[in-house]
Amino acid sequence: MPKIDVCFSPNLLDLYDLQGKTAVIVDILRATSCMVAGLGSGVSSILPVATLEECKALEIKGYICAGERNGHRVEGFALGNSPFDYMSEAVKGKRIAMTTTNGTQALVMSSSASQLLIGAFLNLSVLATYIKQQANDVVIVCAGWKGKFCVEDALFAGALAAQLPTFDIEDDSTLAARSLYESAQTNLYEYLLESAHYKRLSHLESGKDVRFCVEIDKFELVPILVGGEIIRAI
Amino acid sequence: MPKIDVCFSPNLLDLYDLQGKTAVIVDILRATSCMVAGLGSGVSSILPVATLEECKALEIKGYICAGERNGHRVEGFALGNSPFDYMSEAVKGKRIAMTTTNGTQALVMSSSASQLLIGAFLNLSVLATYIKQQANDVVIVCAGWKGKFCVEDALFAGALAAQLPTFDIEDDSTLAARSLYESAQTNLYEYLLESAHYKRLSHLESGKDVRFCVEIDKFELVPILVGGEIIRAI
Repeated sequence: MPKIDVCFSPNLLDLYDLQGKTAVIVDILRATSCMVAGLGSGVSSILPVATLEECKALEIKGYICAGERNGHRVEGFALGNSPFDYMSEAVKGKRIAMTTTNGTQALVMSSSASQLLIGAFLNLSVLATYIKQQANDVVIVCAGWKGKFCVEDALFAGALAAQLPTFDIEDDSTLAARSLYESAQTNLYEYLLESAHYKRLSHLESGKDVRFCVEIDKFELVPILVGGEIIRAI
Repeated sequence: MPKIDVCFSPNLLDLYDLQGKTAVIVDILRATSCMVAGLGSGVSSILPVATLEECKALEIKGYICAGERNGHRVEGFALGNSPFDYMSEAVKGKRIAMTTTNGTQALVMSSSASQLLIGAFLNLSVLATYIKQQANDVVIVCAGWKGKFCVEDALFAGALAAQLPTFDIEDDSTLAARSLYESAQTNLYEYLLESAHYKRLSHLESGKDVRFCVEIDKFELVPILVGGEIIRAI
Protein backbone atom coordinates (compact mmCIF):
# COMPACT_ATOMS: atom_id res chain seq x y z
CA MET A 1 0.00 0.00 0.00
CA PRO A 2 1.23 3.53 -0.65
CA LYS A 3 2.09 5.60 2.38
CA ILE A 4 0.70 8.88 3.62
CA ASP A 5 2.46 11.38 5.83
CA VAL A 6 1.77 14.88 7.08
CA CYS A 7 4.47 17.50 7.65
CA PHE A 8 3.06 20.20 9.95
CA SER A 9 5.60 22.89 9.01
CA PRO A 10 8.09 23.59 6.21
CA ASN A 11 10.66 23.91 9.03
CA LEU A 12 10.31 20.16 9.60
CA LEU A 13 10.69 19.22 5.93
CA ASP A 14 14.29 18.08 6.36
CA LEU A 15 12.92 15.13 8.36
CA TYR A 16 10.93 13.92 5.36
CA ASP A 17 12.27 12.26 2.26
CA LEU A 18 10.18 13.58 -0.63
CA GLN A 19 12.12 11.84 -3.40
CA GLY A 20 9.88 9.76 -5.62
CA LYS A 21 6.83 10.94 -3.67
CA THR A 22 3.89 13.21 -4.35
CA ALA A 23 3.88 16.36 -2.21
CA VAL A 24 0.56 18.09 -1.64
CA ILE A 25 1.12 21.73 -0.69
CA VAL A 26 -1.50 23.22 1.63
CA ASP A 27 -1.99 26.83 2.67
CA ILE A 28 -5.70 27.04 3.31
CA LEU A 29 -5.61 30.70 4.45
CA ARG A 30 -5.12 31.55 1.69
CA ALA A 31 -2.47 30.78 -0.96
CA THR A 32 -3.55 27.33 -2.11
CA SER A 33 -7.23 28.22 -1.84
CA CYS A 34 -6.48 31.16 -4.17
CA MET A 35 -4.66 28.88 -6.61
CA VAL A 36 -7.55 26.43 -6.79
CA ALA A 37 -10.13 29.22 -7.07
CA GLY A 38 -8.12 30.99 -9.77
CA LEU A 39 -7.37 27.98 -11.97
CA GLY A 40 -10.93 26.82 -11.44
CA SER A 41 -12.22 30.19 -12.64
CA GLY A 42 -10.21 30.48 -15.83
CA VAL A 43 -6.74 31.72 -14.81
CA SER A 44 -4.37 30.00 -17.24
CA SER A 45 -1.37 29.50 -14.91
CA ILE A 46 0.17 30.63 -11.65
CA LEU A 47 3.90 31.10 -11.26
CA PRO A 48 5.01 30.93 -7.62
CA VAL A 49 8.01 33.11 -6.80
CA ALA A 50 9.83 33.66 -3.53
CA THR A 51 10.40 37.41 -3.53
CA LEU A 52 8.41 40.57 -4.25
CA GLU A 53 11.12 41.72 -6.65
CA GLU A 54 10.93 38.59 -8.81
CA CYS A 55 7.19 38.93 -8.85
CA LYS A 56 7.24 42.55 -9.93
CA ALA A 57 9.86 41.84 -12.61
CA LEU A 58 7.47 39.38 -14.27
CA GLU A 59 4.90 42.12 -14.91
CA ILE A 60 6.62 43.27 -18.09
CA LYS A 61 6.45 39.68 -19.35
CA GLY A 62 2.68 39.87 -19.18
CA TYR A 63 2.09 38.35 -15.76
CA ILE A 64 -0.40 39.80 -13.32
CA CYS A 65 1.30 40.40 -9.97
CA ALA A 66 -0.24 38.84 -6.89
CA GLY A 67 1.04 38.68 -3.38
CA GLU A 68 0.83 39.46 0.28
CA ARG A 69 3.16 39.91 3.19
CA ASN A 70 1.77 39.35 6.67
CA GLY A 71 -1.71 39.04 5.21
CA HIS A 72 -1.66 42.45 3.47
CA ARG A 73 -1.79 42.99 -0.27
CA VAL A 74 1.54 44.28 -1.56
CA GLU A 75 1.38 47.90 -2.69
CA GLY A 76 1.37 48.19 -6.46
CA PHE A 77 0.27 44.56 -6.97
CA ALA A 78 -2.97 43.92 -8.85
CA LEU A 79 -4.02 41.01 -6.66
CA GLY A 80 -3.70 40.27 -2.98
CA ASN A 81 -4.35 36.98 -1.27
CA SER A 82 -8.15 36.86 -1.29
CA PRO A 83 -9.60 34.02 -3.38
CA PHE A 84 -12.15 36.48 -4.78
CA ASP A 85 -9.28 38.43 -6.41
CA TYR A 86 -8.49 35.30 -8.42
CA MET A 87 -12.04 34.72 -9.61
CA SER A 88 -12.70 38.06 -11.31
CA GLU A 89 -13.31 38.48 -15.03
CA ALA A 90 -10.11 40.54 -15.25
CA VAL A 91 -7.82 37.55 -14.65
CA LYS A 92 -9.51 34.98 -16.94
CA GLY A 93 -7.02 33.53 -19.41
CA LYS A 94 -4.17 35.39 -17.71
CA ARG A 95 -0.93 34.20 -16.15
CA ILE A 96 -0.38 35.22 -12.56
CA ALA A 97 2.95 35.59 -10.73
CA MET A 98 2.37 35.05 -7.04
CA THR A 99 4.34 35.42 -3.83
CA THR A 100 2.98 34.84 -0.33
CA THR A 101 4.34 34.65 3.20
CA ASN A 102 4.08 30.90 3.58
CA GLY A 103 2.48 29.11 0.64
CA THR A 104 5.00 29.79 -2.09
CA GLN A 105 7.86 29.15 0.33
CA ALA A 106 6.45 25.70 1.11
CA LEU A 107 6.29 24.98 -2.63
CA VAL A 108 9.90 25.98 -3.16
CA MET A 109 11.07 23.91 -0.19
CA SER A 110 9.24 20.80 -1.47
CA SER A 111 10.91 20.80 -4.87
CA SER A 112 12.63 17.44 -4.35
CA ALA A 113 9.27 15.63 -4.65
CA SER A 114 8.57 13.86 -7.93
CA GLN A 115 5.22 15.64 -8.23
CA LEU A 116 3.81 18.76 -6.56
CA LEU A 117 0.06 19.13 -6.22
CA ILE A 118 -1.99 21.93 -4.71
CA GLY A 119 -4.61 21.12 -2.10
CA ALA A 120 -7.47 23.08 -0.55
CA PHE A 121 -10.89 22.27 0.84
CA LEU A 122 -12.16 23.76 -2.43
CA ASN A 123 -10.80 20.75 -4.40
CA LEU A 124 -10.63 18.09 -1.67
CA SER A 125 -12.46 15.14 -3.26
CA VAL A 126 -11.10 15.44 -6.78
CA LEU A 127 -7.59 15.65 -5.32
CA ALA A 128 -8.17 12.54 -3.20
CA THR A 129 -9.44 10.65 -6.26
CA TYR A 130 -6.40 11.71 -8.27
CA ILE A 131 -4.02 10.57 -5.52
CA LYS A 132 -5.83 7.23 -5.15
CA GLN A 133 -5.53 6.58 -8.88
CA GLN A 134 -1.81 7.27 -8.89
CA ALA A 135 -1.23 5.13 -5.76
CA ASN A 136 2.08 6.90 -5.11
CA ASP A 137 3.42 7.68 -1.61
CA VAL A 138 2.17 11.09 -0.54
CA VAL A 139 3.39 13.75 1.89
CA ILE A 140 1.01 16.55 2.77
CA VAL A 141 3.09 19.67 3.38
CA CYS A 142 1.37 22.24 5.58
CA ALA A 143 2.58 25.76 4.88
CA GLY A 144 1.89 26.90 8.43
CA TRP A 145 2.54 30.47 9.56
CA LYS A 146 6.16 31.56 9.52
CA GLY A 147 7.21 28.02 10.33
CA LYS A 148 4.65 27.42 13.04
CA PHE A 149 1.81 24.91 13.07
CA CYS A 150 -1.48 26.23 11.62
CA VAL A 151 -4.70 24.50 12.49
CA GLU A 152 -6.47 25.13 9.17
CA ASP A 153 -3.71 23.38 7.23
CA ALA A 154 -3.72 20.46 9.68
CA LEU A 155 -7.51 20.20 9.37
CA PHE A 156 -7.21 19.94 5.61
CA ALA A 157 -4.47 17.32 5.94
CA GLY A 158 -6.81 15.33 8.16
CA ALA A 159 -9.67 15.69 5.70
CA LEU A 160 -7.49 14.41 2.85
CA ALA A 161 -6.11 11.54 4.96
CA ALA A 162 -9.69 10.56 5.84
CA GLN A 163 -10.39 10.20 2.11
CA LEU A 164 -7.34 7.93 1.69
CA PRO A 165 -8.14 5.22 4.24
CA THR A 166 -6.18 2.48 2.44
CA PHE A 167 -2.90 4.43 2.56
CA ASP A 168 -0.46 3.35 5.29
CA ILE A 169 -0.06 5.98 7.98
CA GLU A 170 3.63 6.66 8.60
CA ASP A 171 3.60 9.09 11.50
CA ASP A 172 1.58 10.45 14.38
CA SER A 173 1.02 13.73 12.58
CA THR A 174 -1.37 12.01 10.16
CA LEU A 175 -3.24 10.39 13.04
CA ALA A 176 -3.52 13.72 14.86
CA ALA A 177 -4.62 15.61 11.75
CA ARG A 178 -7.36 13.06 11.11
CA SER A 179 -8.56 13.26 14.71
CA LEU A 180 -8.66 17.03 14.54
CA TYR A 181 -10.68 16.93 11.35
CA GLU A 182 -13.09 14.39 12.75
CA SER A 183 -13.81 16.57 15.76
CA ALA A 184 -14.15 19.79 13.74
CA GLN A 185 -15.66 18.70 10.43
CA THR A 186 -19.24 19.60 11.23
CA ASN A 187 -18.31 23.17 12.12
CA LEU A 188 -15.06 24.02 10.39
CA TYR A 189 -15.74 27.74 10.23
CA GLU A 190 -16.66 28.04 13.88
CA TYR A 191 -13.58 26.02 14.78
CA LEU A 192 -11.35 28.41 12.86
CA LEU A 193 -12.85 31.40 14.64
CA GLU A 194 -10.69 30.31 17.58
CA SER A 195 -7.51 29.99 15.55
CA ALA A 196 -4.55 32.33 15.64
CA HIS A 197 -4.64 32.76 11.89
CA TYR A 198 -8.26 33.78 11.88
CA LYS A 199 -7.52 36.35 14.55
CA ARG A 200 -4.73 37.75 12.38
CA LEU A 201 -6.97 37.82 9.31
CA SER A 202 -9.92 39.30 11.10
CA HIS A 203 -7.97 42.48 11.70
CA LEU A 204 -7.70 42.86 7.98
CA GLU A 205 -11.09 41.96 6.65
CA SER A 206 -14.29 40.09 7.32
CA GLY A 207 -14.66 36.36 7.62
CA LYS A 208 -15.85 36.20 4.00
CA ASP A 209 -12.56 34.74 2.77
CA VAL A 210 -12.41 32.22 5.59
CA ARG A 211 -15.96 31.05 4.98
CA PHE A 212 -15.12 30.56 1.31
CA CYS A 213 -11.82 28.76 2.00
CA VAL A 214 -13.56 26.06 4.07
CA GLU A 215 -16.17 25.30 1.40
CA ILE A 216 -15.62 21.73 0.29
CA ASP A 217 -15.47 20.58 -3.36
CA LYS A 218 -16.42 23.87 -4.96
CA PHE A 219 -13.99 23.19 -7.82
CA GLU A 220 -13.22 20.07 -9.85
CA LEU A 221 -9.53 20.44 -10.58
CA VAL A 222 -6.12 19.39 -9.38
CA PRO A 223 -3.43 22.04 -9.78
CA ILE A 224 0.03 20.67 -10.46
CA LEU A 225 3.46 22.27 -10.74
CA VAL A 226 4.90 21.74 -14.22
CA GLY A 227 8.04 23.54 -15.40
CA GLY A 228 7.83 25.99 -12.53
CA GLU A 229 4.23 27.00 -13.17
CA ILE A 230 1.01 25.74 -11.61
CA ILE A 231 -1.53 24.57 -14.13
CA ARG A 232 -4.58 22.28 -14.17
CA ALA A 233 -3.65 18.58 -14.13
CA ILE A 234 -7.32 17.68 -14.45
CA MET B 1 -2.96 37.12 31.79
CA PRO B 2 0.07 34.88 31.35
CA LYS B 3 0.42 33.15 28.02
CA ILE B 4 0.57 29.50 27.10
CA ASP B 5 2.16 28.03 24.02
CA VAL B 6 2.92 24.55 22.74
CA CYS B 7 5.98 23.67 20.67
CA PHE B 8 5.36 20.35 18.90
CA SER B 9 9.01 19.55 18.21
CA PRO B 10 12.44 20.62 19.47
CA ASN B 11 13.21 21.32 15.80
CA LEU B 12 10.73 24.22 15.96
CA LEU B 13 12.18 25.71 19.16
CA ASP B 14 13.99 28.49 17.32
CA LEU B 15 10.54 29.98 16.57
CA TYR B 16 9.83 30.37 20.28
CA ASP B 17 11.34 32.88 22.64
CA LEU B 18 11.80 31.07 25.94
CA GLN B 19 13.56 33.92 27.76
CA GLY B 20 11.83 34.82 31.00
CA LYS B 21 9.38 31.96 30.50
CA THR B 22 8.74 28.62 32.11
CA ALA B 23 9.41 25.67 29.80
CA VAL B 24 7.65 22.39 30.54
CA ILE B 25 9.52 19.49 28.96
CA VAL B 26 7.37 16.56 27.87
CA ASP B 27 8.43 13.13 26.68
CA ILE B 28 5.56 10.91 27.76
CA LEU B 29 7.03 7.72 26.21
CA ARG B 30 9.07 7.66 28.31
CA ALA B 31 11.78 10.03 29.55
CA THR B 32 9.72 12.53 31.53
CA SER B 33 7.40 9.81 32.83
CA CYS B 34 10.52 8.06 34.14
CA MET B 35 11.75 11.26 35.78
CA VAL B 36 8.45 11.83 37.58
CA ALA B 37 8.16 8.17 38.60
CA GLY B 38 11.76 8.10 39.83
CA LEU B 39 11.74 11.32 41.86
CA GLY B 40 8.29 10.36 43.14
CA SER B 41 9.65 7.01 44.33
CA GLY B 42 12.71 8.25 46.20
CA VAL B 43 15.41 8.87 43.57
CA SER B 44 17.33 11.88 44.89
CA SER B 45 18.19 13.57 41.56
CA ILE B 46 18.43 12.97 37.83
CA LEU B 47 21.22 14.48 35.75
CA PRO B 48 20.30 14.69 32.06
CA VAL B 49 23.25 14.34 29.70
CA ALA B 50 23.38 14.37 25.92
CA THR B 51 25.77 11.51 25.15
CA LEU B 52 26.28 7.92 26.24
CA GLU B 53 29.95 8.68 27.00
CA GLU B 54 29.12 11.52 29.42
CA CYS B 55 26.61 9.27 31.09
CA LYS B 56 29.04 6.39 31.52
CA ALA B 57 31.75 8.72 32.81
CA LEU B 58 29.49 9.76 35.70
CA GLU B 59 29.35 6.21 37.03
CA ILE B 60 32.61 6.56 38.92
CA LYS B 61 31.21 9.66 40.60
CA GLY B 62 28.47 7.51 42.10
CA TYR B 63 25.71 8.03 39.57
CA ILE B 64 23.56 5.17 38.33
CA CYS B 65 23.60 5.11 34.52
CA ALA B 66 20.29 5.21 32.70
CA GLY B 67 19.54 5.56 29.05
CA GLU B 68 18.19 4.27 25.81
CA ARG B 69 18.81 4.70 22.14
CA ASN B 70 15.93 3.96 19.76
CA GLY B 71 13.90 2.60 22.65
CA HIS B 72 16.50 0.00 23.71
CA ARG B 73 18.38 0.00 27.01
CA VAL B 74 22.04 0.82 26.47
CA GLU B 75 24.33 -2.14 27.04
CA GLY B 76 26.16 -1.87 30.34
CA PHE B 77 23.71 0.67 31.77
CA ALA B 78 21.87 -0.24 34.97
CA LEU B 79 18.58 1.36 33.91
CA GLY B 80 16.75 1.66 30.60
CA ASN B 81 13.82 3.85 29.85
CA SER B 82 11.00 2.00 31.57
CA PRO B 83 9.40 3.91 34.45
CA PHE B 84 9.46 0.71 36.50
CA ASP B 85 13.29 0.77 36.38
CA TYR B 86 13.15 4.09 38.24
CA MET B 87 10.82 2.87 40.96
CA SER B 88 12.85 -0.04 42.30
CA GLU B 89 14.30 -0.21 45.80
CA ALA B 90 17.79 -0.25 44.28
CA VAL B 91 17.61 3.40 43.13
CA LYS B 92 16.08 4.97 46.26
CA GLY B 93 18.22 7.82 47.55
CA LYS B 94 20.49 7.51 44.50
CA ARG B 95 21.53 10.00 41.84
CA ILE B 96 20.83 8.95 38.26
CA ALA B 97 22.65 10.12 35.11
CA MET B 98 20.26 9.78 32.18
CA THR B 99 20.45 10.06 28.41
CA THR B 100 17.57 9.38 26.01
CA THR B 101 16.90 9.78 22.30
CA ASN B 102 14.55 12.74 22.60
CA GLY B 103 13.79 13.79 26.16
CA THR B 104 17.20 14.91 27.34
CA GLN B 105 17.83 16.63 24.00
CA ALA B 106 14.66 18.68 24.43
CA LEU B 107 15.85 19.71 27.90
CA VAL B 108 19.23 20.83 26.60
CA MET B 109 17.64 22.78 23.74
CA SER B 110 15.28 24.61 26.12
CA SER B 111 18.01 25.95 28.36
CA SER B 112 17.26 29.61 27.60
CA ALA B 113 14.03 29.42 29.62
CA SER B 114 14.08 30.99 33.07
CA GLN B 115 12.73 27.79 34.59
CA LEU B 116 12.58 24.21 33.34
CA LEU B 117 9.90 21.87 34.68
CA ILE B 118 9.20 18.24 33.87
CA GLY B 119 5.70 17.21 32.85
CA ALA B 120 3.95 13.86 32.49
CA PHE B 121 0.42 12.56 32.92
CA LEU B 122 1.76 11.09 36.16
CA ASN B 123 2.05 14.59 37.71
CA LEU B 124 -0.44 16.56 35.60
CA SER B 125 -2.58 18.30 38.21
CA VAL B 126 0.15 19.23 40.67
CA LEU B 127 2.14 20.69 37.78
CA ALA B 128 -0.87 22.72 36.60
CA THR B 129 -1.40 24.06 40.12
CA TYR B 130 2.27 25.03 40.39
CA ILE B 131 2.15 26.87 37.04
CA LYS B 132 -1.06 28.68 37.99
CA GLN B 133 0.49 29.87 41.25
CA GLN B 134 3.55 31.25 39.48
CA ALA B 135 1.45 32.90 36.75
CA ASN B 136 4.47 33.08 34.45
CA ASP B 137 4.27 32.64 30.66
CA VAL B 138 4.66 28.98 29.81
CA VAL B 139 5.85 27.06 26.75
CA ILE B 140 5.18 23.33 26.66
CA VAL B 141 8.05 21.70 24.76
CA CYS B 142 7.14 18.34 23.24
CA ALA B 143 10.19 16.11 22.82
CA GLY B 144 8.70 14.31 19.83
CA TRP B 145 10.54 11.48 18.08
CA LYS B 146 13.75 12.47 16.32
CA GLY B 147 12.28 15.88 15.61
CA LYS B 148 8.88 14.69 14.48
CA PHE B 149 5.50 15.31 16.06
CA CYS B 150 4.46 12.69 18.63
CA VAL B 151 0.82 12.34 19.56
CA GLU B 152 1.36 11.33 23.18
CA ASP B 153 3.33 14.51 23.90
CA ALA B 154 0.70 16.63 22.14
CA LEU B 155 -2.05 14.93 24.15
CA PHE B 156 -0.27 15.80 27.37
CA ALA B 157 0.20 19.40 26.21
CA GLY B 158 -3.53 19.55 25.57
CA ALA B 159 -4.32 18.08 28.97
CA LEU B 160 -2.12 20.68 30.68
CA ALA B 161 -3.58 23.53 28.60
CA ALA B 162 -7.07 22.37 29.56
CA GLN B 163 -6.09 22.82 33.22
CA LEU B 164 -4.88 26.37 32.54
CA PRO B 165 -8.02 27.90 31.01
CA THR B 166 -7.22 31.46 32.09
CA PHE B 167 -3.87 31.52 30.25
CA ASP B 168 -3.90 33.33 26.89
CA ILE B 169 -3.46 30.97 23.97
CA GLU B 170 -0.72 32.25 21.65
CA ASP B 171 -0.77 29.78 18.79
CA ASP B 172 -2.81 27.19 16.97
CA SER B 173 -0.69 24.39 18.36
CA THR B 174 -2.24 24.91 21.81
CA LEU B 175 -5.74 24.91 20.34
CA ALA B 176 -5.02 21.71 18.40
CA ALA B 177 -3.43 19.97 21.39
CA ARG B 178 -6.45 20.78 23.54
CA SER B 179 -8.83 19.49 20.86
CA LEU B 180 -6.86 16.28 20.54
CA TYR B 181 -6.95 15.74 24.28
CA GLU B 182 -10.66 16.44 24.48
CA SER B 183 -11.39 13.82 21.84
CA ALA B 184 -9.05 11.20 23.33
CA GLN B 185 -9.21 11.77 27.09
CA THR B 186 -11.71 9.05 27.86
CA ASN B 187 -9.58 6.39 26.18
CA LEU B 188 -5.99 7.61 26.14
CA TYR B 189 -4.48 4.15 26.09
CA GLU B 190 -6.63 2.93 23.22
CA TYR B 191 -5.85 6.12 21.32
CA LEU B 192 -2.12 5.52 21.69
CA LEU B 193 -2.44 1.95 20.38
CA GLU B 194 -2.76 3.63 16.98
CA SER B 195 0.28 5.81 17.38
CA ALA B 196 3.61 5.36 15.64
CA HIS B 197 5.46 5.47 18.91
CA TYR B 198 3.37 2.74 20.45
CA LYS B 199 4.04 0.59 17.42
CA ARG B 200 7.77 1.16 17.87
CA LEU B 201 7.57 0.37 21.57
CA SER B 202 5.40 -2.67 21.13
CA HIS B 203 8.20 -4.42 19.31
CA LEU B 204 10.29 -4.06 22.40
CA GLU B 205 7.96 -4.90 25.22
CA SER B 206 4.39 -5.11 26.32
CA GLY B 207 2.01 -2.22 26.70
CA LYS B 208 2.69 -2.19 30.44
CA ASP B 209 4.86 0.93 30.25
CA VAL B 210 2.38 2.75 28.05
CA ARG B 211 -0.52 1.96 30.34
CA PHE B 212 1.48 3.30 33.27
CA CYS B 213 2.61 6.45 31.44
CA VAL B 214 -0.99 7.53 30.75
CA GLU B 215 -2.06 7.17 34.37
CA ILE B 216 -3.02 10.61 35.60
CA ASP B 217 -1.87 12.15 38.90
CA LYS B 218 -0.12 9.11 40.28
CA PHE B 219 2.56 11.34 41.83
CA GLU B 220 2.41 14.63 43.70
CA LEU B 221 5.60 16.35 42.65
CA VAL B 222 6.98 18.87 40.20
CA PRO B 223 10.49 18.08 38.98
CA ILE B 224 12.61 21.15 38.23
CA LEU B 225 16.04 21.62 36.71
CA VAL B 226 18.39 23.30 39.21
CA GLY B 227 22.11 23.59 38.56
CA GLY B 228 21.95 21.03 35.79
CA GLU B 229 20.16 18.39 37.86
CA ILE B 230 16.47 17.56 38.09
CA ILE B 231 15.15 17.53 41.63
CA ARG B 232 11.78 17.88 43.33
CA ALA B 233 10.49 21.47 43.38
CA ILE B 234 7.51 20.34 45.44
